[in-house]
Amino acid sequence: MEVINNLLGYPNLKIVQHPEMFAFSLDSVLLPNFVELRKTDKNILDIGTGNAVMPLILTTKTSAKITAVEIQKDVYEMAKKSIALNNINDQIDIINKDINELYKNWESDSFDVIICNPPYFKYEASSNINTSEYKTIARHEIFLDIDRLLKVSKKLLKTNGTLALVHRPERLIDITMKMKENNIEPKRITFIYPKKGKDANILLIEGRKNGKPGLKVNDPLYSHNEDGSYSDEILKYFK
Amino acid sequence: MEVINNLLGYPNLKIVQHPEMFAFSLDSVLLPNFVELRKTDKNILDIGTGNAVMPLILTTKTSAKITAVEIQKDVYEMAKKSIALNNINDQIDIINKDINELYKNWESDSFDVIICNPPYFKYEASSNINTSEYKTIARHEIFLDIDRLLKVSKKLLKTNGTLALVHRPERLIDITMKMKENNIEPKRITFIYPKKGKDANILLIEGRKNGKPGLKVNDPLYSHNEDGSYSDEILKYFK
Repeated sequence: MEVINNLLGYPNLKIVQHPEMFAFSLDSVLLPNFVELRKTDKNILDIGTGNAVMPLILTTKTSAKITAVEIQKDVYEMAKKSIALNNINDQIDIINKDINELYKNWESDSFDVIICNPPYFKYEASSNINTSEYKTIARHEIFLDIDRLLKVSKKLLKTNGTLALVHRPERLIDITMKMKENNIEPKRITFIYPKKGKDANILLIEGRKNGKPGLKVNDPLYSHNEDGSYSDEILKYFK
Repeated sequence: MEVINNLLGYPNLKIVQHPEMFAFSLDSVLLPNFVELRKTDKNILDIGTGNAVMPLILTTKTSAKITAVEIQKDVYEMAKKSIALNNINDQIDIINKDINELYKNWESDSFDVIICNPPYFKYEASSNINTSEYKTIARHEIFLDIDRLLKVSKKLLKTNGTLALVHRPERLIDITMKMKENNIEPKRITFIYPKKGKDANILLIEGRKNGKPGLKVNDPLYSHNEDGSYSDEILKYFK
């Protein structure tokens, strides 16, 4: 059953969600707040947009045109409703296609920025997958993995264009190697730690197509306080 | 003029230093406290040991045999004095040779652990190098760089042996790629930040020869408080 929620922290935005598909996560709030947009950025692509939470948040930060692609028909329909509900059809163009096919017909060097909150988990026949097909596709590398994402980004990004991803720190080496192989230079990282004394559990990474080597590791964020509540540094994204 | 100092935080250790060569740095205290030694680790190699501060600290943590190599004759002599002064000639074997030549004559798979605080800066004819030749060699990639260090480590480390380095976060991508090329899998990282709100300025990284992929990014350390004094988390290494 679909529900309409206020997008927490964004009083002017509403979002359509479905508990059996997925609700937007902390990851999807962190990435649009992490990516550095330049005034010259006119075209943004969100690959695997889900219920379009990242484009919705980006509309509060930029007037650039946002193209959002979602492979799952039902999820796409939900995203479409959210976009209509917020009256931002002019800024967000949502497409129900497989990016792996779609990008072949698109011109090279056509986006200033690509963002993606991709599936995190390697998919194997033995994987302990989610019972919901929606969640399985969103979380496992079935239709999209790092290899395919970087191949698409290499073609579609303009020179000096930005690729910004949210992923798991365990995959850092894999991600940075694939970025380099595709001429996207890792430039900036933020790690998110669940609390003091724990290993990082979220990786935010930004690269530039044909960029010069030289990485900055920005100051970390702690998502939770000792008592389990959200930290002030995270709550600021919901204010 | 050489001076004998107490090794701060290690009341039983003394160290010989020379202001025109170099004094031991925070980096050299962090690495021996970062590396995870296993009870089965019997042979440790320190490449480019300088005044042997890392082997000295390691003697407080392990009874494993430590081989320390230093290319600069005068620096080696100073390290030798420190080792004699602390009566640990039995545990530390110091050698005045170029590791790039020396390792060719050594057996493969002969060390459980290799540690290194290598020169950080790329060397170019135009580099703003230090006026002291000692410091220039210690800080610039003249006799040792990431490529050569990994080549040596690949040969000398046992399978599942540990390589632990301290370096600059800017070089993370370069270091992890070279580790992978040499079958040393990056397994654990700690970033050190000078203070809250600043980018990381020290990278501690540990890899395992022929290890399985899967990286942990440990909780970060802040080296300084807001007022510029050393933080408690750093001072604990000096207590």
